[in-house]
Amino acid sequence: MSELANFPKSIGLLLYPGFEVLDCAGPIEALNCLAFAPGDPDLKLSIISRSMDPVAAGATSNQFHAAQKWLPTHTFDTAPQIDMLLVPGGFGSFDWLPGTEDNNVDDYIAYVKKAYHGYGEFKPLQYIMSICNGTILLAKAGILDGRKATTNKDFFFDIAKLGPKTHWLGKARWVVDDNVWTTSGVSAGADGMLAFMEERMDKKWVTGVANMMEWRRVDSSDDDPFAEVEGTHDVLPTAA
Amino acid sequence: MSELANFPKSIGLLLYPGFEVLDCAGPIEALNCLAFAPGDPDLKLSIISRSMDPVAAGATSNQFHAAQKWLPTHTFDTAPQIDMLLVPGGFGSFDWLPGTEDNNVDDYIAYVKKAYHGYGEFKPLQYIMSICNGTILLAKAGILDGRKATTNKDFFFDIAKLGPKTHWLGKARWVVDDNVWTTSGVSAGADGMLAFMEERMDKKWVTGVANMMEWRRVDSSDDDPFAEVEGTHDVLPTAA
Repeated sequence: MSELANFPKSIGLLLYPGFEVLDCAGPIEALNCLAFAPGDPDLKLSIISRSMDPVAAGATSNQFHAAQKWLPTHTFDTAPQIDMLLVPGGFGSFDWLPGTEDNNVDDYIAYVKKAYHGYGEFKPLQYIMSICNGTILLAKAGILDGRKATTNKDFFFDIAKLGPKTHWLGKARWVVDDNVWTTSGVSAGADGMLAFMEERMDKKWVTGVANMMEWRRVDSSDDDPFAEVEGTHDVLPTAA
Repeated sequence: MSELANFPKSIGLLLYPGFEVLDCAGPIEALNCLAFAPGDPDLKLSIISRSMDPVAAGATSNQFHAAQKWLPTHTFDTAPQIDMLLVPGGFGSFDWLPGTEDNNVDDYIAYVKKAYHGYGEFKPLQYIMSICNGTILLAKAGILDGRKATTNKDFFFDIAKLGPKTHWLGKARWVVDDNVWTTSGVSAGADGMLAFMEERMDKKWVTGVANMMEWRRVDSSDDDPFAEVEGTHDVLPTAA
């Protein structure tokens, strides 16, 4: 279908130790359901990690979390051309919480940076989307410098400190700045992906995807009650 | 905390080929967040499959789906005592959809049946919860006979035929009948799990979990707009 001709076909999901499962599963489920839209866009998924080893979710000190293990399909070195990269949040990208001090996702940040700008024979990403505190990786990769962005509301002010050149929106389910999408916490990733779809296809298809997911969609980016719950407000850039 | 003393501690997640990721990730995320509630209930998670091989999600004919691979922690033979078993939906438990005719989840159904009733040294499950068309496995295991239940609304009438001794509720985000919880499609699993928690602890904790997930909670079981979308209505038992 012509409507999907420009939809990014090669989707990457960055999988680092301590990722959060729903951060990944929300937008991925929306894309799963899109496969049943009229004119299946024939998306390809690459799940990218530092090695092909299984990757455990959440806090490693917690058996319930660490039992959730996903498998990568590619390493940084074998990843194909990616059109859109999804960067989930999770414990693994905090380094100031108890039990996470030893985490090191510097190699993931380096991959995010080179994938975004293009490297070797690979073209730059068409789009990048962070979910929840996946913004930490984007901020550290410099991708949020000079941009507007949001992140999860629970750790909003801590994360905002990591992006001093960013205008952080304190009340937003998601934020779009050029080709950089940032969503609020966990569940907001699915709403961000549905909004991304809606910019690219007829709303009735997006509604069909949300219905298939039985997802109570938030379809307005400024509809964000968690801002009030957590008392978040905009943080302006403190550096040029 | 005394409030969590009776919360099921040993959680099982049944993982069969063709499972749906959000069916799993919704309720699991709610339990992930419960680990941060006052008085961490110290939950244990067992992910149970027929072997220790990685298990692929969705439709095997679809690369995007099949790239989503989770790892089990146990087989049917090595699974420990489970207090609450989560049974997700997904393509793998349909056998009438194109491309799924060769699926065989009979061994999963057998495990569900024996786990529910108890076997060997293992006590019966305290609770079982199906998400989406995970009801197919419960229906085939006979667990829904003589009970009220719901299932996903998109395939509601097809699934209802598999449980002729069941009163199927056509408009319900979730249904509780004794220790058997059935939820509607995909996203409804998280709402079902939050409702399960709310029966067992102070609402403020459940609200805290939902806030951490930034989840726009459906907290009433009869709040189900997808019934109208799909035109579902109750199906009464046709057999005794």
